[in-house]
Amino acid sequence: PFQVQKKNIRTAALIVCTFTYLIIGACIFDALEDAPSTDRKHLFERKFAQFKLDHNMTNATFRQLSDLIMNKTTLRHKWQFYDSFYFSTVVLALIGYGHRTLITTRAKIFCILYAMLGIPIWLITFQSAGERLNSLLSHLLSKVKRSFHMKKTKTTDGELLIMESFLSMVILLIGACVFSKYEKWSFFDSFYYGFITLTTIGFGDYVVLQKTDEDRTFIRHAKYFIFCTAFIFLGLTVVASLMNLLVIRIVAFYSQERLLEKLREEEAASQAVLLKGDVICSTNANKPRSKTPSLTSASRPTHPQTVPLLIHSSQTSVCSCTCMETFSE
Amino acid sequence: PFQVQKKNIRTAALIVCTFTYLIIGACIFDALEDAPSTDRKHLFERKFAQFKLDHNMTNATFRQLSDLIMNKTTLRHKWQFYDSFYFSTVVLALIGYGHRTLITTRAKIFCILYAMLGIPIWLITFQSAGERLNSLLSHLLSKVKRSFHMKKTKTTDGELLIMESFLSMVILLIGACVFSKYEKWSFFDSFYYGFITLTTIGFGDYVVLQKTDEDRTFIRHAKYFIFCTAFIFLGLTVVASLMNLLVIRIVAFYSQERLLEKLREEEAASQAVLLKGDVICSTNANKPRSKTPSLTSASRPTHPQTVPLLIHSSQTSVCSCTCMETFSE
Ligand SMILES: [K+]
Ligand SMILES: [K+]
Repeated sequence: PFQVQKKNIRTAALIVCTFTYLIIGACIFDALEDAPSTDRKHLFERKFAQFKLDHNMTNATFRQLSDLIMNKTTLRHKWQFYDSFYFSTVVLALIGYGHRTLITTRAKIFCILYAMLGIPIWLITFQSAGERLNSLLSHLLSKVKRSFHMKKTKTTDGELLIMESFLSMVILLIGACVFSKYEKWSFFDSFYYGFITLTTIGFGDYVVLQKTDEDRTFIRHAKYFIFCTAFIFLGLTVVASLMNLLVIRIVAFYSQERLLEKLREEEAASQAVLLKGDVICSTNANKPRSKTPSLTSASRPTHPQTVPLLIHSSQTSVCSCTCMETFSE
Repeated sequence: PFQVQKKNIRTAALIVCTFTYLIIGACIFDALEDAPSTDRKHLFERKFAQFKLDHNMTNATFRQLSDLIMNKTTLRHKWQFYDSFYFSTVVLALIGYGHRTLITTRAKIFCILYAMLGIPIWLITFQSAGERLNSLLSHLLSKVKRSFHMKKTKTTDGELLIMESFLSMVILLIGACVFSKYEKWSFFDSFYYGFITLTTIGFGDYVVLQKTDEDRTFIRHAKYFIFCTAFIFLGLTVVASLMNLLVIRIVAFYSQERLLEKLREEEAASQAVLLKGDVICSTNANKPRSKTPSLTSASRPTHPQTVPLLIHSSQTSVCSCTCMETFSE
């Protein structure tokens, strides 16, 4: 019950933090975007008035025309197979640019069913790939360290975090270079597109592969298509590794507190049975444990299997469960 | 090395599965949406031609007008504070409808920094809240079972999954009722909006709180605003619990295989040291372990603390580490 209450308090504190963060964000977005938005609005109003005057249009016909144009944007060009592949990717990756909208009910129903099955598969695949990438990177860094004859060859979570951040930055910058060249966006806008895509926010104000100028040959188009999808797949793998380091481990760590509870219960039970003179396994709960998954695990012993073999008394052989330590590696 | 290879093969198999699933989806989306899209395109072309003829417009001026109208949609009405709060929520929840686009570079830079810090906080908060919800639901179900004097009062993961799915369906249906009333969408479209929002795809073809008719009084608006944000927060908490059940446990379970490896190494080490006559802690690796997180944990003993106290020999006290068992509870 004490453990449960502690968890509830932690969750409540996190919720309060998130809300505060949301309100701070709202204030800043409010301050940053309001003025230019109204400026531009006036500009548009003037231009529209001029247009109506020039072409002798009533307000009603103008609204009719703008409704037509708004609807037309949802079907700018005939969809080809690669467009549909791109759309499926955008749905399963939870990006959802909205560059293509589903109109028929049967397509919407299929989309719901497709997402319900596909999203768990996608998340498990990318988390799995991200975990593999983490393991590969830590293996590579260990090798590099060994070749330089360093003492501590183990890769810490902190080093892994830095490497992953660096890798995602490299992917974003390469993406920004290529996108700014092919889509004729500014470099910063291309970077912004990449960031919004890889975080899976996917506003849809910038979407690649939407240009319809006919002079592009198919080969060039195919190469660019492959680059764009590879950017999404590789980028999301690196983001998944980062999330694996930052979120999943923390969440799974908290789930593991149940284990700790259980072990404490076990110890209490073992204390009760001790009088019978059995050899009993308990945990050394007195040993201070780090309450958060240590991102810098430099302080940990390099050979944990030699550590837990402690004997507290002649009757009780105590095996410290190394779950917590091994898990955060 | 064998363990590593097995993981690589599993990840490769998952990637192949995901790609196959993507291609199947692409085929079906291609088949479902192509025909109506071209039909509608012809309809629009005819209507546009009629419009140009009626108002004596050249193609150039028509394109100019449609560019103007397209840009105007990004600033349909003056943003208020609650709009900015809604926008922050849409960014951090990774929904990204794109109903509001950032135009200035300073706003885009702030958005990038805001998301980089905020998304991990958001994910940890919701995963934490989802885990609490799972724990609450399993506690409630146990109580109900006890009140009916059932033998097995423990809630299994399967039962939890059914309850969470039921709860998310209830939230989606309540949302669909309210949205269809206030936004004047069809019931199915409102359900589709809710699903696309709670999966955080967020196409942006349907977005609540975007109507600008002035006759709505503020109180009614405020109530509806609270309902819409509550729908997102509660819905995402339930989805987070579902993801906690479906994804995080599976991923964390695979991460835990490292622990298993370590324990096997330890056992091997203990076998080597045995000759010295020490009291050694090893794991009973011979005991068959379930290879997947058991969704139906009915077969597990109800009092695990009495199980691991086994003595294999007089010299070696064996403590079976109950990590795997406790973790999947
Ligand atoms: K999204
Ligand atoms: K989106």
